[in-house]
Amino acid sequence: MTTKPQIPRRADFPVFRGITTRWMDNDVYGHVNNVVYYSWFDTTVNAFLIEQGVLDPASGDAVGVVVETLCRYHDSVAFPEPVEAGLRVERIGTSSVRYEIGIFRVGAELASADGHFVHVYVDRETRRPVAVPEAVRAVLLPLTDHQP
Amino acid sequence: MTTKPQIPRRADFPVFRGITTRWMDNDVYGHVNNVVYYSWFDTTVNAFLIEQGVLDPASGDAVGVVVETLCRYHDSVAFPEPVEAGLRVERIGTSSVRYEIGIFRVGAELASADGHFVHVYVDRETRRPVAVPEAVRAVLLPLTDHQP
Amino acid sequence: MTTKPQIPRRADFPVFRGITTRWMDNDVYGHVNNVVYYSWFDTTVNAFLIEQGVLDPASGDAVGVVVETLCRYHDSVAFPEPVEAGLRVERIGTSSVRYEIGIFRVGAELASADGHFVHVYVDRETRRPVAVPEAVRAVLLPLTDHQP
Amino acid sequence: MTTKPQIPRRADFPVFRGITTRWMDNDVYGHVNNVVYYSWFDTTVNAFLIEQGVLDPASGDAVGVVVETLCRYHDSVAFPEPVEAGLRVERIGTSSVRYEIGIFRVGAELASADGHFVHVYVDRETRRPVAVPEAVRAVLLPLTDHQP
Repeated sequence: MTTKPQIPRRADFPVFRGITTRWMDNDVYGHVNNVVYYSWFDTTVNAFLIEQGVLDPASGDAVGVVVETLCRYHDSVAFPEPVEAGLRVERIGTSSVRYEIGIFRVGAELASADGHFVHVYVDRETRRPVAVPEAVRAVLLPLTDHQP
Repeated sequence: MTTKPQIPRRADFPVFRGITTRWMDNDVYGHVNNVVYYSWFDTTVNAFLIEQGVLDPASGDAVGVVVETLCRYHDSVAFPEPVEAGLRVERIGTSSVRYEIGIFRVGAELASADGHFVHVYVDRETRRPVAVPEAVRAVLLPLTDHQP
Repeated sequence: MTTKPQIPRRADFPVFRGITTRWMDNDVYGHVNNVVYYSWFDTTVNAFLIEQGVLDPASGDAVGVVVETLCRYHDSVAFPEPVEAGLRVERIGTSSVRYEIGIFRVGAELASADGHFVHVYVDRETRRPVAVPEAVRAVLLPLTDHQP
Repeated sequence: MTTKPQIPRRADFPVFRGITTRWMDNDVYGHVNNVVYYSWFDTTVNAFLIEQGVLDPASGDAVGVVVETLCRYHDSVAFPEPVEAGLRVERIGTSSVRYEIGIFRVGAELASADGHFVHVYVDRETRRPVAVPEAVRAVLLPLTDHQP
């Protein structure tokens, strides 16, 4: 039904970001709800772009629009433990970027969850695809080195 | 990078559920954030199971654990408009169920977003996979008819 | 510690809005988490303003900034039941508006929760208080009639 | 309409907890939405209780039920900056506890927001008020020292 996934390892990701969990992240089963992981995905990607100085949501002609995301859940995490989100760039295309993200318990070797997040850059006004901005490309290139 | 998806149509889904949007669903770009769609996915699946009488989160030996979800975004939606979530069962396996969900603007023929949601049933205590409960199987069978 | 509140009744509110709950709204105790009620508060206020044509988040010189909110919880609600949010305007000041909101189970006479939500209008650029826009004042005036 | 609040200072709180913001916390105005602050409030209170060993959501005869929360917003914060949440116990009653929380930008002297959060302890089965458990009282007592 779904191909048995290879669980990513810590070494598969060049950069990490610490993320704290919240009480309401846990659902009725006492673990972080599946939806919340995606909030960590776009937090990881966008924080990297903002902190590298290549994303200002209030300006810029080219806007990254999310066209596809996926998450595979290998193991649960639960509030109040924090997590570490690893980020890798799998491919930079003409107008799109595919990120891979791994969610790790603190210090864990294997990911508790992993998935992808695909941005397509479009013109803010016309919404037509445009080239990935050069400045974005420059900061993402170093994240393409860690292919597993 | 991602294969160009076929956008699902309304007729591809046997049941629908109305869902209202919330002010905070819209992100800085003024449209519903990509993460929120997944909250509609598990709302649609779990509401169906609860209202059919086959899911009681506080009891039951077999628990449906989410192992994979995916969403493709075709068009944006924005608060305050409500959406309609279509639900179909793509496959019932020995211990897993794969649902397909389509998110539609009210009255729209083509989905604004679509994706899948995979449950694996496990024993509440041992967390080992178990067979999809017969009662669950019975209510899902009618949702397998609308394959596009 | 807190004064015993009078529980609002349905007749205390001139307008209502239906809101659907979501699976992830329920926390580990199996009821909608206290935080979620506030998302219903600002949904109720902002949807009213948008649908009356007096709020366009992307434009307008005067912006309503939230300066205080409060919620009292009388009884729990739980996914998958929907709720009905009642809205009343308690006071329109020079630059601020105080709304009262009641959250009701469908058809219930007494509120499950209630509270207030205070907007102060400020200039979008300078962030200094400005007068409540005349168009806003006009649509809110009819909501001031139902003082309990 | 609301009494002009005294803005709390860092020294008013005996313990702090670092909390990271998320991309979707920012609403259409580009700042963290008012609702999100309450998720930080119950995160701060519950994390303290869990880490002190006096809250296990899955067990315990006495359960803390939220009966009232309030937040005053003095200044905005925005993703991707983290915040620091200060916690103080204002009063321990027979069956209730009133917490005060302050949300600070990293290193800031004055709170960006502050409010209260009131728990009433009830019997898990009968839902009738019970005494604040002795173990809870013991870990909260040291947090009552910093009254401003």
